Amino acid sequence: MRTQVAIIGAGPAGLLLGQLLFKAGIDNVIIERQTGEYVLGRIRAGVLEQVTMDLLARAGVDARAKAEGLPHEGIELLFKGARHRIDLLGLTGGKQVTVYGQTEVTHDLMNAREAEGLTTIYSASQVSLHGFDGERPTVRYEKNGATHEIECDFIAGCDGYHGVSRASVPSGAIHTYEKVYPFGWLGVLADVPPVSHELIYANTPRGFALCSMRSPTRSRYYVQVPVDERVEDWSDEAFWNELRLRLDPEARDHLVTGPSLEKSIAPLRSFVAEPMRFGRLFLAGDAAHIVPPTGAKGLNLATADVGYLSRALEVFYREHSASALDRYSELCLRRIWKAERFSWWFTSLMHRFPDTGEFGQKIQEAELDYLVHSRAASTSVAENYVGLPLEDF
Amino acid sequence: MRTQVAIIGAGPAGLLLGQLLFKAGIDNVIIERQTGEYVLGRIRAGVLEQVTMDLLARAGVDARAKAEGLPHEGIELLFKGARHRIDLLGLTGGKQVTVYGQTEVTHDLMNAREAEGLTTIYSASQVSLHGFDGERPTVRYEKNGATHEIECDFIAGCDGYHGVSRASVPSGAIHTYEKVYPFGWLGVLADVPPVSHELIYANTPRGFALCSMRSPTRSRYYVQVPVDERVEDWSDEAFWNELRLRLDPEARDHLVTGPSLEKSIAPLRSFVAEPMRFGRLFLAGDAAHIVPPTGAKGLNLATADVGYLSRALEVFYREHSASALDRYSELCLRRIWKAERFSWWFTSLMHRFPDTGEFGQKIQEAELDYLVHSRAASTSVAENYVGLPLEDF
Repeated sequence: MRTQVAIIGAGPAGLLLGQLLFKAGIDNVIIERQTGEYVLGRIRAGVLEQVTMDLLARAGVDARAKAEGLPHEGIELLFKGARHRIDLLGLTGGKQVTVYGQTEVTHDLMNAREAEGLTTIYSASQVSLHGFDGERPTVRYEKNGATHEIECDFIAGCDGYHGVSRASVPSGAIHTYEKVYPFGWLGVLADVPPVSHELIYANTPRGFALCSMRSPTRSRYYVQVPVDERVEDWSDEAFWNELRLRLDPEARDHLVTGPSLEKSIAPLRSFVAEPMRFGRLFLAGDAAHIVPPTGAKGLNLATADVGYLSRALEVFYREHSASALDRYSELCLRRIWKAERFSWWFTSLMHRFPDTGEFGQKIQEAELDYLVHSRAASTSVAENYVGLPLEDF
Repeated sequence: MRTQVAIIGAGPAGLLLGQLLFKAGIDNVIIERQTGEYVLGRIRAGVLEQVTMDLLARAGVDARAKAEGLPHEGIELLFKGARHRIDLLGLTGGKQVTVYGQTEVTHDLMNAREAEGLTTIYSASQVSLHGFDGERPTVRYEKNGATHEIECDFIAGCDGYHGVSRASVPSGAIHTYEKVYPFGWLGVLADVPPVSHELIYANTPRGFALCSMRSPTRSRYYVQVPVDERVEDWSDEAFWNELRLRLDPEARDHLVTGPSLEKSIAPLRSFVAEPMRFGRLFLAGDAAHIVPPTGAKGLNLATADVGYLSRALEVFYREHSASALDRYSELCLRRIWKAERFSWWFTSLMHRFPDTGEFGQKIQEAELDYLVHSRAASTSVAENYVGLPLEDF
């Protein structure tokens, strides 16, 4: 088989890239190790930046996100028992975020791809990348006992942190940066109305908590737990009790509990691999970088990467110029490091750390007290939360 | 002897408090362990916030600071080899700082106090504080072999971190917070013109550097050094060579070197004692809190404390109300913790830490890159640098 761009991974990054390329008249094939059902079953983020909404619009798959997504014009910070609102809309001159589950984004992109009759190869095993240091890269995989090969102009590695794409790069050509946090997030998804119509990020003596949602009838809650905690040790009742202890009285009164649809513990990590381009292989999304979930930047960084990549590939095919592709890694990384900084900062501000001691806690409180009362500091939080703009090539 | 307020310590905090109280018609005596010459010989900070300038004006001792002080409308941040200016004046709606040595402030305050014929007892040994849990506190000290006692209404502890005032409080009544940084500042004072007309804060692979000044002909430079470094091991030449390696090419070209008038290594520490009031004893300045010097908040916090204290004592004597005195500790600490936060943040942003690794350095660069390009983040830095406003009682 031959295509212009072979995309590794059918998560939201790979699917969005495929759709953006298709709209630009660039042929592409997606190769995915798992089944489509497995991909859809992953519960992930749910807050979309305007940049992501704009890319979905460009890909022609924003109809349901616009109709069913919940525009959020602010977030609430809870500390020392009181909530303080950050007015995202007012502070950023009209920007907001949209609450819409990653699973729904994936679903919409899958449907659009299917409707256009584009090729996605699911359940591809033994995927391997070849020749991306030259002009004629190939992707090999096995399916139903047979070995297949795809010839292409470019490979887009959208296959996540554990994927084959980054692992295919010679170790001497890549530099990685990492920070592991000494705690995780215990998360519960439940079909109960959210405790508040906006997200609540809570810094409490018992640790961080987040009240989030997927829809007016589906809530997503998290509590910070020690990194070695086992999800088996947390009954639904224990989770709700712990969450309640981290809320303010008003939120406690409004909390509706119910059986968990999903319950899991996610570790928190910051990770960046540099560069993001190796010859004709381009990494995008979790394949190149991970952020802790505080501030909801993970999915949004992935969509921004493929936004840059699709534009660079358009320039290549339309203008026969590699100039944009040559700047892909640099432009992505500049924005990524700012989001890494924001995610690290917001994580550091809101969680209890085992080793910062009383001084660290007082500094957290002083920073929260300062930022909710300073227009400049609130604006800085807001402009990062809604997402920094994409740069031009 | 009897007075209304006994002030322990004739540093800038104690002297300014004395002058502010005198202007308000409140009798006071200063008791100082050292000689006046010793106090004047201490080389300290040199950047005054507008709040400090206003307090000097209120005390009637701002003439020389206004005439000879250098108004600074911006600072420069140097990282990755390039300088970026933070426009303090433009970002704060007209605020600035004044470069004027702490030694000069002390000198002016001493002269004013002498001119008014106010009592300062220098070389007082064995100073001890008594009865501040009741209505009639006393201060005892020895001088020239005799023991003296001062009866007063209030004691103001302006005698620094190592002073007797904080040490006189029962340990169960005070809570302290501390952070020690794994490096120090090697500083040189020299009669050479400054490398630039504004301060340069540099984040470099070799560590932090600061180009500061006291006047158009006297420069103050610092380089970050390991905390166990000995000043004896640093010749002037070695210092200038190290400083040069941490500057950008333009600054290197303009650097004029010369013999050091003073050379020392200062450790960096964050420290806060809470509360700042114990009956009729009030702590102010370094007696209650220490900041690392990055951002020049130490002297300015001390003057703000005595600004609050003088106003609270005025209310007490004029209105026979303790309401302002009762709020002294709370009001001071709210502002102090914000300055502690800023000083800790600016220190963390600009220095090399032995344990943050490559991820930490990339985060520093991302934050610097973000803040010099974001008006909101630059404004946040600027409003903290020029000093947050004093609150009303």
